[in-house]
Amino acid sequence: MEIKTHPLFHGTNQMMWAKGTVVKEPKGFVFLAGSEGLDPNVNEPWPKGAVVVEGGIEAQTRLALEKIKSRLEEMGSSLENICHLWWYLKGPEFPDGIAYSPNMIKARKVREEFFKEHAPSLCMDKNPPPSTLLSVPSLAFKDMLIEITVIAALAD
Amino acid sequence: MEIKTHPLFHGTNQMMWAKGTVVKEPKGFVFLAGSEGLDPNVNEPWPKGAVVVEGGIEAQTRLALEKIKSRLEEMGSSLENICHLWWYLKGPEFPDGIAYSPNMIKARKVREEFFKEHAPSLCMDKNPPPSTLLSVPSLAFKDMLIEITVIAALAD
Amino acid sequence: MEIKTHPLFHGTNQMMWAKGTVVKEPKGFVFLAGSEGLDPNVNEPWPKGAVVVEGGIEAQTRLALEKIKSRLEEMGSSLENICHLWWYLKGPEFPDGIAYSPNMIKARKVREEFFKEHAPSLCMDKNPPPSTLLSVPSLAFKDMLIEITVIAALAD
Repeated sequence: MEIKTHPLFHGTNQMMWAKGTVVKEPKGFVFLAGSEGLDPNVNEPWPKGAVVVEGGIEAQTRLALEKIKSRLEEMGSSLENICHLWWYLKGPEFPDGIAYSPNMIKARKVREEFFKEHAPSLCMDKNPPPSTLLSVPSLAFKDMLIEITVIAALAD
Repeated sequence: MEIKTHPLFHGTNQMMWAKGTVVKEPKGFVFLAGSEGLDPNVNEPWPKGAVVVEGGIEAQTRLALEKIKSRLEEMGSSLENICHLWWYLKGPEFPDGIAYSPNMIKARKVREEFFKEHAPSLCMDKNPPPSTLLSVPSLAFKDMLIEITVIAALAD
Repeated sequence: MEIKTHPLFHGTNQMMWAKGTVVKEPKGFVFLAGSEGLDPNVNEPWPKGAVVVEGGIEAQTRLALEKIKSRLEEMGSSLENICHLWWYLKGPEFPDGIAYSPNMIKARKVREEFFKEHAPSLCMDKNPPPSTLLSVPSLAFKDMLIEITVIAALAD
């Protein structure tokens, strides 16, 4: 398997998201459910068992990224083998764009800290993976502020 | 080809969506267009030919799932080989989360009935597939309440 | 590798989107970041380097499609090997559906012109690829009106 992310430049400046990722001869793929900040330690049947952790967007983003890391590894992949991420931020509206919104600024800071610790090659100044950044009026459960859907390649 | 869905637990309780699906050595993939409740029997050119069936969210969900089943089978796959579903519910907003909204409760009931009949292994208490549940302010055509996008693996 | 798009009929009329695409024995896949109308010639670091081109939805759609074409080719794929497109139109709401909205009518006209020139087999009356058409309350940067996310197969 060979995976390569093509960086994106505007003029001479690298942007914080890539052009895309090409995956050659993968052994397969991992499709994760949307990852979020729901607390996995709440021991109640669904739907009572679906409650976000305390700590706002930062805590939800960190927990979502931790789930992505551990689930990819459980299924034979890794953060470095991510092909695409969809970032869904709860809106409803971001008049100046999602990228500048207070919640996304906080989520991006957590993401950079997380990648710096666990997958430094994905940091903004290195080789950030291709993504789609979207806002939605609401997510599955009350108080959810972020959901991240990932497709990753299977390592050999 | 080997496909395996990893169930999700919060405490000791299984949630109604999975952690993710891992697909090893697939023969290929099927990418379905967003499936919806538009009536395929309306014999008019586009755009007049795009009209939702009567019967609200239940009828639209059932028709969308029937299209998913028949199209996957036509293309060499099946409900059991679904890798990921994106559920798009027309909003604009669900103050208590989409999962508790009247339309999603109805859609989920239809989905459970449909899976019980056609793919019992995907029911909520068995091995529900990984998904992303999102709301959108509007869908392609008037009165569309739900759209479901599916990626599935090709059976051998 | 074999790729086949299955056309969609309502009655005897072909719709402008397909049932789906089946990809057999692909060499791999290309996952593009969401493509948009941000001007790649603005030579400023992020976030100042993320500015939409002038010319509204038409110019943004054309630039997004040009990016998709050139990036797919750079990574060993092509427009003809697109498996699925997600079209995200900035809303917030389209009371008569997105397909009839002024911005989507303009975007579709640009798309048809673009495909006619660069990939005539994808035109509406031939074999249009499977897609999901969604509205979102906002996109990543101010004044972005459209974003298109693509997964494509790798040619042999």
